[in-house]
Amino acid sequence: MIEYRNLRVALLGAGSVGSQVARLLLDQGDEFAARVGARLELVGIAVRDLDAKRDTDLPRELYTTEASTLILGADIVVELMGGIEPARGYVHEALTSGADVITANKALMATHGPELFEVAEQVGAQLYYEAAVAGAIPIIRPLRDSLAGDRVDRILGIVNGTTNFILDRMDTTGATLADALATATDRGYAEADPTADIGGYDAAQKAAILASLAFHTTVPLDRVHREGITSVTKEQVDAAREAGAVIKLLAICERLTDPETGEEGVSARVYPALIGRDHPLAAVHGAHNAVFVQAAAAGDLMFYGAGAGGVETASAVLGDVVSAARRHVVGGPGVAESTHADIPVLDIGRVITRYQITLDVADQPGVLAAVARILSDGGVSVETMRQSVPTATGVAVLSGTAPIHGAGAPTATLVIGTHEAEEAALAATVEVLAASDVVIAISSVLRVEGY
Amino acid sequence: MIEYRNLRVALLGAGSVGSQVARLLLDQGDEFAARVGARLELVGIAVRDLDAKRDTDLPRELYTTEASTLILGADIVVELMGGIEPARGYVHEALTSGADVITANKALMATHGPELFEVAEQVGAQLYYEAAVAGAIPIIRPLRDSLAGDRVDRILGIVNGTTNFILDRMDTTGATLADALATATDRGYAEADPTADIGGYDAAQKAAILASLAFHTTVPLDRVHREGITSVTKEQVDAAREAGAVIKLLAICERLTDPETGEEGVSARVYPALIGRDHPLAAVHGAHNAVFVQAAAAGDLMFYGAGAGGVETASAVLGDVVSAARRHVVGGPGVAESTHADIPVLDIGRVITRYQITLDVADQPGVLAAVARILSDGGVSVETMRQSVPTATGVAVLSGTAPIHGAGAPTATLVIGTHEAEEAALAATVEVLAASDVVIAISSVLRVEGY
Repeated sequence: MIEYRNLRVALLGAGSVGSQVARLLLDQGDEFAARVGARLELVGIAVRDLDAKRDTDLPRELYTTEASTLILGADIVVELMGGIEPARGYVHEALTSGADVITANKALMATHGPELFEVAEQVGAQLYYEAAVAGAIPIIRPLRDSLAGDRVDRILGIVNGTTNFILDRMDTTGATLADALATATDRGYAEADPTADIGGYDAAQKAAILASLAFHTTVPLDRVHREGITSVTKEQVDAAREAGAVIKLLAICERLTDPETGEEGVSARVYPALIGRDHPLAAVHGAHNAVFVQAAAAGDLMFYGAGAGGVETASAVLGDVVSAARRHVVGGPGVAESTHADIPVLDIGRVITRYQITLDVADQPGVLAAVARILSDGGVSVETMRQSVPTATGVAVLSGTAPIHGAGAPTATLVIGTHEAEEAALAATVEVLAASDVVIAISSVLRVEGY
Repeated sequence: MIEYRNLRVALLGAGSVGSQVARLLLDQGDEFAARVGARLELVGIAVRDLDAKRDTDLPRELYTTEASTLILGADIVVELMGGIEPARGYVHEALTSGADVITANKALMATHGPELFEVAEQVGAQLYYEAAVAGAIPIIRPLRDSLAGDRVDRILGIVNGTTNFILDRMDTTGATLADALATATDRGYAEADPTADIGGYDAAQKAAILASLAFHTTVPLDRVHREGITSVTKEQVDAAREAGAVIKLLAICERLTDPETGEEGVSARVYPALIGRDHPLAAVHGAHNAVFVQAAAAGDLMFYGAGAGGVETASAVLGDVVSAARRHVVGGPGVAESTHADIPVLDIGRVITRYQITLDVADQPGVLAAVARILSDGGVSVETMRQSVPTATGVAVLSGTAPIHGAGAPTATLVIGTHEAEEAALAATVEVLAASDVVIAISSVLRVEGY
C-alpha cells in the first residue's frame, strides 16, 4: 500500500556502477517500493556523450547530457562520475537544491568532504557515501551509527583490492611484483595505469575518510602518510612467509598521544606492513577488502567483503538510496556528519610502531655488538635478532664462532625485530645503520602491525 | 552548544551489560552530548532487589524497584533484564508510553518481536535490538539499512561464543567435548547450566531474528530447526581436521525453493556442520562470533567480533541509544521494521544440503557396490568416497583387493561425501544404510556447509 508520491532519482554517470544501479532500480521497483513506502522513479542518467557505446540495455531516453537540469528536478541524486570536477560542482548543486546525495566518489569525499557536509547541513540535506570506502562492505554506517556510543581507537584496513591481489599472489605463488601486477592487469584487477592503486593513493583517500569519520574530526588527505607497494620485493614476501607473517598494504587510522607534548592526536597512514598469519587480516585473500576496527568497549571487530566491482558497489549505493528515500517518506532532517572533535593530525614521525630490519653484514666477530650499539644509541629496543637461514653464508655473527664453512662467504644476513618505538627514532636509526662500516647493505625495512 | 532538553534514559536491569551501560553513560556524558546534540540523563536503574550485592560503584540513589514508574518518565528505555517476563510487559509499557526501547534480549525478540514491532509502529516509537545478536558486532543495522537495496540470499552465522570456544578447543587441542566444556566453564565462557548454549537454543533464537530481518518476513522460533553440539565427538573433530575442515555450530538462514511445489520459501536452522578451512568462518576462533552474509549484488560479506561480554555488548546497546537519542533531537518518526514479505518457512526436510557419512562396514568384496546401490536408490549422488586412513583395518573395500594384512580386522571405515540433495532424501538414505546388512555402524553424519 503505497501512499507517498514517487521519489525522483537522478543518476550522474553510467559506468560499471552506474549502469548496475540503474538496472537494479528498474528491475526491482516493486521490492524497493515495499521497503521504502514510495516508488523510486529513475528520472534520468547524466552522461558526457549520448552516443558512447554502452553494453547495457537501459532505455535510451533515460540518457541526457543536461546534468544540471536533471538535478533540479530530483529528490535524490546519485553521483557516480568519479573524480573531483565536474562531480564536485554537481554535488554542490544537488545539495543546494535540497536533494539528498549519494556518492561513491572517494577522491571527492577525501578532498572536499567537510565543505560538502557543511552545504548539506545548511540546507538540511543528506550526504551518503557508503560505497566510497571498501565497496560493498558496510563500514561507514557501522562507524557512524553502530559505534556511535563507543570510542574507536584504531582501524587497520585492507581497502585496495588491486594491491591485495598483487601481494596475495606474491605470497601464494612466489611471483615477483612485476609478474603479479601483470596477472592483476590480465584479470581486470588492475587498470592500464595502476599508479593510483600500487602507489597507495586510492588507499590514502579511504584512510582520510575513515579517520575523519572514526575520530569525529577532519583528517585532510595531504596529512595522510602514504607509501605504495612498488618497493615490496619477492625476497621480503618470501621471508615474511617463512617467518609466519604476510605483507599487506594497510590503511591505518589511530588515536595516539604525541610522545613529546603529551597532546592527543590522530594518525592516518598507508604503507605495506608485516602482519602475523594469525591476525584476521592475514586471511583476506585476492581482491577482497576488510576493515579491522578496535574500539574501547566493543573490542576487535572486522568487516569483510568485496571491495570493488560494479554490482557489488551498486549494493552499497542502493542501501544509501533506500535510506535517503525512507527519510523522505518518514520525514525528519536526518543526521548531520559528526565532526565535533578537533584533534590534531600528527606527523608520521610521531607514530609508535615496530620495525623489522634486514641487514647484510660482514660475517666477522664484533659485528653484532656494533649493530646492537647503534640500535641502543638510537633508543631502539630489540625484541628479536636472528640470522636468516644460512645458504652460502656462515652463522658466525650470532654465535660468535667461526663460519661453519670456509667457502669465501664474507657476509651474513641479520633480521632484527624491534620493540615499539617512535617512527622518527626508528627511521634515524636505520640511517645510522646504513652509514655504518659493519653494514654492507640494508635489504629490507618493514613496519610490523597487528599486535 | 547543546540546545535540546536533556533526554531521560531509564535502565531496566543491572547485570554485567547494564552496569557497563550505566557506567559509560555517566562517564562519557560530554562525548554523548556532543554526538547527540542533547545530554543523556540516566534517570534510574530498575532492579528486583535494592540490596543485592553489586560490584560496581554506581550511585545507590539510581536504583529503584519501581520499573513502571521509571518507564513512565523516560524518553528512552533500555531493557537488559533478559528472559520473557517481566521484560515483555515492561517493553510493552515503554513503547505504549511513546518511549523508544533498546533491548539486548534475544529470547524476547525471537518470540515476541512481531508483536512488539506492531506496538512500536502504532505509537510511532522505535525498537532497537543490535545487541540481541552477536554482541558487539554490528549486524542488525547492516542487514536493515546497508543491505536495504540488495537481496540477502543466505546467512551463515557463528552466533554462540560458548559453543565456538568448545569446538575450537576440540579442534586445536584434541580435547573431548566434556573436557572442552569444563575448560569453557572454568574460564567463564559457559554457564553452570550450559544447556541454552550447547543445546543450540541460544543460536536458534538468533537465527529466528536474523532470518526475519534478512528476508523481511516473520520466522517464528519454533520453526527454526535446532541441533546442538552435544553429539559432536572428538573423532569427528579429528577426522575433520585431517580432511582440511572444521566443525562449527552454524546458524543458517536461507532463501530456497520448495523442490516439490516450486514455491519460494525460507529456512532457518542451527546445527554443527563441516566447513572447509579456507572459508572465512573457519578462522573464527575462541568465543568470537561472525556472521557471513551472501547477497545478490554485494556478494560475500562477513562481520566479525566479540559475541558477548558486558562491555562489548554495552557498545552495541549504546550505539542504539545514540541512534534513538538523535531521532529525538532531529525529529521524524523513524523507520518501522520492514516485514513486507510473507514467505513460508520450509521444513528442514526441504533444505538442500550435503552430507558427510562415516560408516563402519564389513571389509569384504561387494560391500562398496551394496553401499553405492543404497545411495543411488535413495537419490543421493556421491561426490567422494574414501576409506579413512587404515590403522588396524585393511584397505580392501575400495581397491577390491584382499586386505594388506591379515590381523583379524574384519571392518573398514568408509567416508562418503554426497552431492547436494534434499535433507529428507539424505536422512532417509542414512536410515536405509543403518539397517543394511553390510553396514556395521554409522559412526558420524555431518552436514557440509560453506560451498
